[in-house]
Amino acid sequence: MTTFSNTRKARIEWGDCDPAGIIFYPRYFEIFDASTALLFERATGLTKYQQLKALNFAGYPLVRTQARFIRPTRFGDDVTVESKITFGRASFEIEHKLSLDGTLCVECSEKRVWVVRDAQGVLKSAPVPEEVLTKFRR
Amino acid sequence: MTTFSNTRKARIEWGDCDPAGIIFYPRYFEIFDASTALLFERATGLTKYQQLKALNFAGYPLVRTQARFIRPTRFGDDVTVESKITFGRASFEIEHKLSLDGTLCVECSEKRVWVVRDAQGVLKSAPVPEEVLTKFRR
Amino acid sequence: MTTFSNTRKARIEWGDCDPAGIIFYPRYFEIFDASTALLFERATGLTKYQQLKALNFAGYPLVRTQARFIRPTRFGDDVTVESKITFGRASFEIEHKLSLDGTLCVECSEKRVWVVRDAQGVLKSAPVPEEVLTKFRR
Amino acid sequence: MTTFSNTRKARIEWGDCDPAGIIFYPRYFEIFDASTALLFERATGLTKYQQLKALNFAGYPLVRTQARFIRPTRFGDDVTVESKITFGRASFEIEHKLSLDGTLCVECSEKRVWVVRDAQGVLKSAPVPEEVLTKFRR
Repeated sequence: MTTFSNTRKARIEWGDCDPAGIIFYPRYFEIFDASTALLFERATGLTKYQQLKALNFAGYPLVRTQARFIRPTRFGDDVTVESKITFGRASFEIEHKLSLDGTLCVECSEKRVWVVRDAQGVLKSAPVPEEVLTKFRR
Repeated sequence: MTTFSNTRKARIEWGDCDPAGIIFYPRYFEIFDASTALLFERATGLTKYQQLKALNFAGYPLVRTQARFIRPTRFGDDVTVESKITFGRASFEIEHKLSLDGTLCVECSEKRVWVVRDAQGVLKSAPVPEEVLTKFRR
Repeated sequence: MTTFSNTRKARIEWGDCDPAGIIFYPRYFEIFDASTALLFERATGLTKYQQLKALNFAGYPLVRTQARFIRPTRFGDDVTVESKITFGRASFEIEHKLSLDGTLCVECSEKRVWVVRDAQGVLKSAPVPEEVLTKFRR
Repeated sequence: MTTFSNTRKARIEWGDCDPAGIIFYPRYFEIFDASTALLFERATGLTKYQQLKALNFAGYPLVRTQARFIRPTRFGDDVTVESKITFGRASFEIEHKLSLDGTLCVECSEKRVWVVRDAQGVLKSAPVPEEVLTKFRR
């Protein structure tokens, strides 16, 4: 089983927060999407833009996500996001844990599929290329 | 058991979509949050702003959400969002079904809690007021 | 001179607002971008997605914008956005006026260019096609 | 005249970009808003949340902004944002320059006002407190 993990910091901004003064929860999914991209960037050494050019695929859209919001965060908070990926054949699962000063605030899991464009430009699922999996094994 | 449902239309915009040409999935949660607000607005006859003034509470933040993405949508799509709420004591569950031309694209469930501010301004859970539940029973 | 105007309603949502309880101003630009797209949709009878397929161009990115924020708006406000377009050769200007109950809240002007992709896929400016201009003259 | 400047890095994310593959321009204003907040944070040593508590004000909403978009940026770009503030009595102006690898991509100017809440909770303009100005002079 191929797994790989990554930790990064993120700043919760004023504009991420709602009139209750806490983060508007869709912003967490923006943070998690960027964390997933960073996992691939750190493993492959390529930004997502460079990956799309090099690997001839179209992205890795979500098929499912699930999140628990344990403690709110707010503007000025510098949170830590730990992300761990586990690969299947044509899909992968990611677990994100977002914490503030060591206290867990949000847990999220994602299932995503690797997609390519067929001759008509339609998105369809495809096996994660071996050259990608290899990078995550290093 | 108190339930109530609501249907609305939403337009997927260019700026909601990502370089794959399909909706960036955190935007779905913005749509669902607005649908939840509209449920309360249609039941109470008050906008969320008016509710906050009239009902002395601070919002209904999420404690959990879960979504399945079945078919992508893209800019120019006019989707239909059906939302159904079921109340517990200090929390409620909402099911959203987002479809395009009768085909289900996303299913999402949310659990939210009713919160008030205590004397120190801290958010804490509280029972959903009877005057709110009554509106949903009509 | 080819001009065309359009009026639409937009709802300011909870998630568009910041901890001061008023709209977070970048959300206005999302509203204006959607209003510009709607101008083209109403003139051509095609959504932006359909236009991109039919007209072989890549969009109309901004080169300049300018906005005055006169009165704040907040969640629950149903605002009116009037937009007026005036065409140049390879560019066009749009004036947006956003008002609430007849009171002007924001004024914004945009200059955008019509772009196509060259053989290498690079975005470059091009004249607005005559078949597009014709639609706006009707 | 009190001026102060600040430079920071920002990453353009996949979710910041639109179907043309370049940044959706309202995202630039989110970046600039965070840069403005960072100016105040670096000068005062307090996050915006801490400032709101310590300084008894309600924020610094925009009254005007103006931007020129010179070159597009896209996901994976690590841009540099230089911001310079100049204070008036109850307002201040900020100039942002966003560049990629030394090439200017966007120029933006903002005028903002310092606001407090009156006894009825209504936002109104007020002089920037001397204790704030002092921090920027250091």
